[in-house]
Amino acid sequence: MSGPPRMEVIPLPGLPLVKRGDDVGELVVRALRSHGLSLQPGDVLVVAQSIVSKAEGAVVDLRKIRPSEVAKRLAPRLGKDAREVEVVLREAGEILRASHVLITRTEHGFVCANAGVDHSNVEKDRVTLLPRDPDGSAEKIRRTLREKLGVEVAVIISDTQGRAFRTGCLGVAIGVAGMRPLLDLRGRKDLYGKELRATVLAQADAIAAAAVSVMGEAGEGTPVVLVRGAVYEKGRGSARELVRSREKDLFS
Amino acid sequence: MSGPPRMEVIPLPGLPLVKRGDDVGELVVRALRSHGLSLQPGDVLVVAQSIVSKAEGAVVDLRKIRPSEVAKRLAPRLGKDAREVEVVLREAGEILRASHVLITRTEHGFVCANAGVDHSNVEKDRVTLLPRDPDGSAEKIRRTLREKLGVEVAVIISDTQGRAFRTGCLGVAIGVAGMRPLLDLRGRKDLYGKELRATVLAQADAIAAAAVSVMGEAGEGTPVVLVRGAVYEKGRGSARELVRSREKDLFS
Repeated sequence: MSGPPRMEVIPLPGLPLVKRGDDVGELVVRALRSHGLSLQPGDVLVVAQSIVSKAEGAVVDLRKIRPSEVAKRLAPRLGKDAREVEVVLREAGEILRASHVLITRTEHGFVCANAGVDHSNVEKDRVTLLPRDPDGSAEKIRRTLREKLGVEVAVIISDTQGRAFRTGCLGVAIGVAGMRPLLDLRGRKDLYGKELRATVLAQADAIAAAAVSVMGEAGEGTPVVLVRGAVYEKGRGSARELVRSREKDLFS
Repeated sequence: MSGPPRMEVIPLPGLPLVKRGDDVGELVVRALRSHGLSLQPGDVLVVAQSIVSKAEGAVVDLRKIRPSEVAKRLAPRLGKDAREVEVVLREAGEILRASHVLITRTEHGFVCANAGVDHSNVEKDRVTLLPRDPDGSAEKIRRTLREKLGVEVAVIISDTQGRAFRTGCLGVAIGVAGMRPLLDLRGRKDLYGKELRATVLAQADAIAAAAVSVMGEAGEGTPVVLVRGAVYEKGRGSARELVRSREKDLFS
């Protein structure tokens, strides 16, 4: 289809199951090649947290976990295995709310359910944790792509999370490299020469949301998505810029 | 570029400034034609709230507003014109928090800043309100596209909003037609045959976020975006399904 410039959001199916020690950047290179795709400067690769965690060994074997009394007490209400609850409690920097899910603030600062501990897309009796340093994970993939393909791209590590006030889950960026996650429009004018209202756009989250929406109806069955033509500012950045400090949170 | 199936997010620049009484569906038809684009079944048109509100006359002339004492008292702290604050107070079904922004629940149920009252992308001394019935607005555009172009599409009315716990604004769906806003994956299995964790995806919000991210660095300078290849379920739906009831809100 010809016509005006556009953003293309291209899932790359067919990745092998990822194991500890795998080089995710290398897997992305192979996935691109298998689909006959070459990278262009400014492309964004969105990579699901699940495969990054597995490659980095951020996986816990529940058979080795002895749940605490607190975890055992919480488990029935949460409808979860007490050993998984124990892992959540260990991972959570802070528990913000404990009803039928645990709303937590992770050590990274992200507010999300269950500290990002996930039993889907990993072997039985195992859970994935969020990567320890998701920006670092993104940078490592970015470096591999530059070395192997000679192209400067941005990389986003995505997670799929619920949110306050609205139903359903959405992809968000938990790690970035090669991009500013926020696009600051302060000082720009609207069509009528007036200040814009929505002056700072969370472009990394928007790109992650777009990518996760096509990762396949099988959840994270396609954990790598190429995004071409996205609007963002190149440069150094951290997904922590997307975290609103508790003091500045407007809603809670 | 050939290769695997993809989602394309195509902004349609060049729309005229929208006035009260304009037929937004007709404007979309003309925008598509001017870009040489024809619609395909399953396409999604994302239309910014600002032009829908203007076409529907959901615009308030601040020169006719006499601010209440409450509005006058709040205005300096909010850094806003007291008349605009007065409009926010009238529009808000409920004020959830009043710090340096007013966090409100609108009559539609949406939790957002300033009840969606917006002074950008409209003439001086005027503000736009959210459309009264954004699903109805979306359905009207959808009907026009079907009548004029003979194609069944989905339509999303988008707004650009801040969110709890995270910085930056993101496009969200405040009205939908021809689609289910949520994609329910309950019962489906992951790569390892286990239940998926993130079982309900907010696809209408993901598509809105993608569209708003390319609406132009000039904010809502390009208020119509064609999205092709999005993953969603066709059918009847309402953006109110994206609103989490107060009772079920997990985070607050």
